[in-house]
Amino acid sequence: MDLARHGATPAGGVNRQALSMEEIAARRTLLQWAAGLDLRAGTDDAGNFFLRMEGSEPRAAAVLTGSHIDSQPTGGKFDGAYGVLAGLECLQAFRESGVRPRRSIEVVAWMNEEGSRFAPGMMGSSVFSGARTLPEILEVRDRQGITVRSALTTMQEAFPDLPRWELQRPLHAYVEAHIEQGPLLERHRRNIGVVTGIQGKRTFEVTVTGEQAHAGTAPRAERKDALLGALRAIDALCELCRDEADLARFTVGRMDLLPNAPSVVPARATFSIDLRHPDSCVLRELGDRIQAVCEHHAEPCGVRVRELSTSMSLEFPLAARELIEASARRLGIPSMEILSCAGHDARYLHEVCMAGMIFVPCKGGISHNEAESVEPGELADGARVLAETLWTLASQA
Amino acid sequence: MDLARHGATPAGGVNRQALSMEEIAARRTLLQWAAGLDLRAGTDDAGNFFLRMEGSEPRAAAVLTGSHIDSQPTGGKFDGAYGVLAGLECLQAFRESGVRPRRSIEVVAWMNEEGSRFAPGMMGSSVFSGARTLPEILEVRDRQGITVRSALTTMQEAFPDLPRWELQRPLHAYVEAHIEQGPLLERHRRNIGVVTGIQGKRTFEVTVTGEQAHAGTAPRAERKDALLGALRAIDALCELCRDEADLARFTVGRMDLLPNAPSVVPARATFSIDLRHPDSCVLRELGDRIQAVCEHHAEPCGVRVRELSTSMSLEFPLAARELIEASARRLGIPSMEILSCAGHDARYLHEVCMAGMIFVPCKGGISHNEAESVEPGELADGARVLAETLWTLASQA
Repeated sequence: MDLARHGATPAGGVNRQALSMEEIAARRTLLQWAAGLDLRAGTDDAGNFFLRMEGSEPRAAAVLTGSHIDSQPTGGKFDGAYGVLAGLECLQAFRESGVRPRRSIEVVAWMNEEGSRFAPGMMGSSVFSGARTLPEILEVRDRQGITVRSALTTMQEAFPDLPRWELQRPLHAYVEAHIEQGPLLERHRRNIGVVTGIQGKRTFEVTVTGEQAHAGTAPRAERKDALLGALRAIDALCELCRDEADLARFTVGRMDLLPNAPSVVPARATFSIDLRHPDSCVLRELGDRIQAVCEHHAEPCGVRVRELSTSMSLEFPLAARELIEASARRLGIPSMEILSCAGHDARYLHEVCMAGMIFVPCKGGISHNEAESVEPGELADGARVLAETLWTLASQA
Repeated sequence: MDLARHGATPAGGVNRQALSMEEIAARRTLLQWAAGLDLRAGTDDAGNFFLRMEGSEPRAAAVLTGSHIDSQPTGGKFDGAYGVLAGLECLQAFRESGVRPRRSIEVVAWMNEEGSRFAPGMMGSSVFSGARTLPEILEVRDRQGITVRSALTTMQEAFPDLPRWELQRPLHAYVEAHIEQGPLLERHRRNIGVVTGIQGKRTFEVTVTGEQAHAGTAPRAERKDALLGALRAIDALCELCRDEADLARFTVGRMDLLPNAPSVVPARATFSIDLRHPDSCVLRELGDRIQAVCEHHAEPCGVRVRELSTSMSLEFPLAARELIEASARRLGIPSMEILSCAGHDARYLHEVCMAGMIFVPCKGGISHNEAESVEPGELADGARVLAETLWTLASQA
């Protein structure tokens, strides 16, 4: 609740976009809390923030936990922030118990997970893990024309004393706690979700080009109506993705017509495709057929399909999943396996160390929404399982 | 070409929207030309401009011709302007021939036919003819928030000496010359179209309301996707309007999604319907079924249908059509009957006096477009038929 004051909106949510003044103020609050726990703080060239509890074997690869504190423009209090604060809570508990972990434990706040100000998201974690390079992200601009480079410089100026730690440092493991952003845990009355993996996602932009014409004079037979072309293509794509098990997620969330005037037959329709499937093979196959399906059904209009991003489905290693499940069992907290349908920074950490995720329920499955809400008891259960898991990992040789 | 300098665009068209500085400058050019022909000029409370050649029986109801000089934002040189200038050309020819008509003949430039700055269009002619009242139009605002009232005041200040003539003055007849805005005259190699009538038009705004959801987490079966609801409704409406003869004109020119974000299942889709049919009965029947068809097919989404405007198809009186046809025949210019698929000011004049229209070809049927083009010989033929027709009408007892 204290962190949620940074960027608080009248409707009870937060607007705390990456590297905004509000997010910088929230970072300062984090640093103050970390100082109270005698944690060492550092950043890296990608603007990620780390808060470190030194282990008894400080040169051993650290155990990392955390998430992000940036939000959607009309976001909730818990998405991302929970993972960072649950991590801090664990370190505070270890400290107050007077114990010291063998491996160092760090809490991270990744730079720009949401991607709503600077696209694409998961910027900090992708650069930290080496999936993207620093130059690739620095020239990205927000809607005001501000580059990531200049926004990073501004943020770094606010924390001149923070040491710059290396990108791609070796890690022992990464565990991220997060709200589910879906209804399953609530529906099954389990406070802990052991995340099995993250479903893959391919995004496309489809442009259908027809011919502008007068709505009163152009006969149906002579029209090349871009909206109707797009409509037929979308209908066929829905059919392509329709599966009995209801696993494929096909969404057209955006559609823009040109000239978008009531009495003009549309000359151009541009629409987005967000395609996800837990099975990478199916995701690949469905995505690869989009171009042909659009071309066939948009006739006599022309079609251009551009793939904007591709991330295949991934499965977290069994060892991480079993560890989390065992932690929950030891604490007597009912858990269940669950697939993450949304993307998370853990996707990139999975590439460089053993990674896992812990989900807690969120009310009604509502997220990316100012109404986001979680019960304090559920948040506490998640933090307890995280603490148990971190301690086990930090004790490993 | 001289008039087209007012609001000229780099692509060879005009941007001369109603009551803009450019249109006011064009009005001044008209007044200068009228002064050179010793015409009397006047305006009315709706901002229409009249240029009058006094007849030998000045108290007899006048014969009116003309059109409009306002344009679409990316309009052509001829749409509207041709009707006004052809009228002026006729008066000049009468004057140079040393003849004087029995009834007075007036050329009118109607205020805001296009409706692109202030909606709806045909404002001046609708108020002149009593179909709309002055108060109904005065508070209409453009995108900048400027009211018709204040734009009219600005225009009137530019012409302080112009007498204010009455709205709804009695008229003997109205004849409007206009480019066809379609391909038929060109295709049939006729320079004159005797317009049989204006096809009716009903416009609607349909709002489909679904439920916003996360593109990655929400299963297909639980979604209420507003875009898919809208697409099903549009598909069914296309089917409803599909006729063998290809007479019905059904257009969805505008579609706006909310929140229109690639990874969010649309919560709301709003789309326009522009429905036209030459047969008023069919137009009424098709339009009346829209609500039910949308409701049935948009399920499980909710639907609201709002009718924005209604104008039934009209037929110009046989007397006017025969007069125009006979004028063309006397001059040896091939003509054909033709239906106006677009709306014109003549629609409103038809309510108060005998009205008719003369079409001339336009290249490729292209209009509402900076590429609009007409051959000088075709424009001259139209003006000759107009002169013949006006003279006959003005000679009637």
